[in-house]
Amino acid sequence: MSTAGKTITCKAAVAWEAGKDLSIETIEVAPPKAHEVRVKIAYTGVCHTDAFTLSGKDAEGEFPVIFGHEGAGIVESIGEGVTSVKVGDHVVCLYTPECKECKFCKSGKTNLCGKIRATQGKGLMPDGTSRFTCKGKKLLHYMGCSTFSQYTVLADISVVAVDPKAPMDRTCLLGCGITTGYGAATNTAKISPGDNIAIFGAGCIGLSVIQGAVERKAGKIIVVDINDDKKEWADKFGATDFVNPTKLPAGVTIVDKLVEMTDGGCDFTFDCTGNVGVMRNALEACHKGWGESIVIGVAPAGAEISTRPFQLVTGRVWKGCAFGGVKGRSQMPGLVQDYLQGKIKVDEFITHRHPLEDINDAFHDMHAGDCIRAVITMDE
Amino acid sequence: MSTAGKTITCKAAVAWEAGKDLSIETIEVAPPKAHEVRVKIAYTGVCHTDAFTLSGKDAEGEFPVIFGHEGAGIVESIGEGVTSVKVGDHVVCLYTPECKECKFCKSGKTNLCGKIRATQGKGLMPDGTSRFTCKGKKLLHYMGCSTFSQYTVLADISVVAVDPKAPMDRTCLLGCGITTGYGAATNTAKISPGDNIAIFGAGCIGLSVIQGAVERKAGKIIVVDINDDKKEWADKFGATDFVNPTKLPAGVTIVDKLVEMTDGGCDFTFDCTGNVGVMRNALEACHKGWGESIVIGVAPAGAEISTRPFQLVTGRVWKGCAFGGVKGRSQMPGLVQDYLQGKIKVDEFITHRHPLEDINDAFHDMHAGDCIRAVITMDE
Repeated sequence: MSTAGKTITCKAAVAWEAGKDLSIETIEVAPPKAHEVRVKIAYTGVCHTDAFTLSGKDAEGEFPVIFGHEGAGIVESIGEGVTSVKVGDHVVCLYTPECKECKFCKSGKTNLCGKIRATQGKGLMPDGTSRFTCKGKKLLHYMGCSTFSQYTVLADISVVAVDPKAPMDRTCLLGCGITTGYGAATNTAKISPGDNIAIFGAGCIGLSVIQGAVERKAGKIIVVDINDDKKEWADKFGATDFVNPTKLPAGVTIVDKLVEMTDGGCDFTFDCTGNVGVMRNALEACHKGWGESIVIGVAPAGAEISTRPFQLVTGRVWKGCAFGGVKGRSQMPGLVQDYLQGKIKVDEFITHRHPLEDINDAFHDMHAGDCIRAVITMDE
Repeated sequence: MSTAGKTITCKAAVAWEAGKDLSIETIEVAPPKAHEVRVKIAYTGVCHTDAFTLSGKDAEGEFPVIFGHEGAGIVESIGEGVTSVKVGDHVVCLYTPECKECKFCKSGKTNLCGKIRATQGKGLMPDGTSRFTCKGKKLLHYMGCSTFSQYTVLADISVVAVDPKAPMDRTCLLGCGITTGYGAATNTAKISPGDNIAIFGAGCIGLSVIQGAVERKAGKIIVVDINDDKKEWADKFGATDFVNPTKLPAGVTIVDKLVEMTDGGCDFTFDCTGNVGVMRNALEACHKGWGESIVIGVAPAGAEISTRPFQLVTGRVWKGCAFGGVKGRSQMPGLVQDYLQGKIKVDEFITHRHPLEDINDAFHDMHAGDCIRAVITMDE
């Protein structure tokens, strides 16, 4: 019996308040309104951004909410006027939507889309309401996705149909970390053959930057991480060098070390840590005259980056990107094909798996250091 | 009688110590060594950078020294191995040299040249010595130029011969401010037709940014200055709007104002003030997704720029340039032709003139606010 047009009752991991574990609850998911899509989530990744907002350090975080933004699933039903996907499509959720109509989408200069930004930022659907209820209380949406629910509702510009041959426990990871790192290297940095690059932080994003750098035939690909166990990971993805900045000789900074290793500085550096002190080092390790540093990590509320302006006057460039500069609806199907053809590693990132009821373990995994990505299975 | 090979005795403005007026002194200028050129300076501009170092706020400033870096003159003699200029050539002094051989010059990505950077930074000629003596004391060189002397010695890579039809009281100003602003707009920013830009600070550099923006057919060209008298100047050079940030309604910041005037933010902004707070505003007034802010001004020692990294993650770019990204030996002859053909305004910048003995008046002029550029006549 079709569930279309009806409220669905299902399980979800609810964040009732900051700093507490998520609660597995039975919730109600209202049917999609016009230009909305209800998706049965099959798998979701757990990302540091979820943990960051859960921690309460995100100034814009509000509760109660259903987190999760790395999701893949199948379209259960569509609202009026939806033409871009149909029931049964395998989709990836997009926390960076793509309307193809707004000033941003039409600029040709950015992947950011302005269409539903205001409501998404408030945890609401484009009409300013929520589709989630639990125990009579409205729950907020998160990043336009809320993939920690067995069913979720998204704007139609926030989903993209992909090849159903691609397993959804892999495609879910293309919804954030892998695409972010790979895109930062290939879209934002535009690495050229022979360029020397440094990547600060060898988590899912940093390792994906390596993938992009390898694809672009970079010269030195130097991974910087305070956890020596990450060397093996860096090697596996194609890094040429690994530096643990806590183990440098006294008086040698990581900037000194990288400048020396690259005969003057890196052509591109990437912050994949969210630490503003690391972001400064990443900028200052760039080559005078042309080196570009790309901020990918999300910093705590109120944290600021600083440097002497002389760093910029002498030619270094400080930039950043969200979702790797990737336009989700236009580019995701191609990334999935790249995965299917073996051009982008995805399977290798999955170090942990949990059923939905153990999702809190995935948060604990992240802090343990041996986890790159935990994938949550949503099915009962 | 030729002076070639002999020490020349002449007048120069000597800075004996920080924070004091310059002294007009009789000095000795040694002949040029190999790959050096001795130039009889005809005219020199006085730039805020000279005043900055004189003030003592420049951490790298050392004394006693002969300042001045906006100079034009005639080659008096050349050292061994000099082939790029000959005696009698009309030249412009280049504080950003161009050797055409180093990693930087050959990169195709920057106008910075690494060849004599270390010695130039120390106020010395490439062999590590000085050519200036006064009362038995060695005087330091400044920015590889020292144009506040009737004769000076420069590395051959620090001079460029230009069309002798161009009056030297004009070409001297192409040695810094005008080229810096014009180049920042045309080389570094690469403004496209219709782009909205904002320029913070309407001095020589800011007004020259306007020239570059007009040449590139920018849309709104908004000048921001706390001195209302600059509105007339901005208009004269082609600005479309003028905003005095001290006269905005309560609660409206200059960032708010610029974002509102440009429907979301500027495509390019330029800091021509050296004030790190202004640099932050300039970045944050950029359009989300693609706006680029270019730092041109020189900040006081120890001053740092700051912002939330979110500004970069959402697509704003923070960069800078020195000498407008212009390669002096390759591009200056063309800029001089552009001046001769009326494509670049230069005459309009000259608001004050003084003979060398009154050079301190030029420094006082700068602080009075009605001065764009003072030109010093060096001849006795």
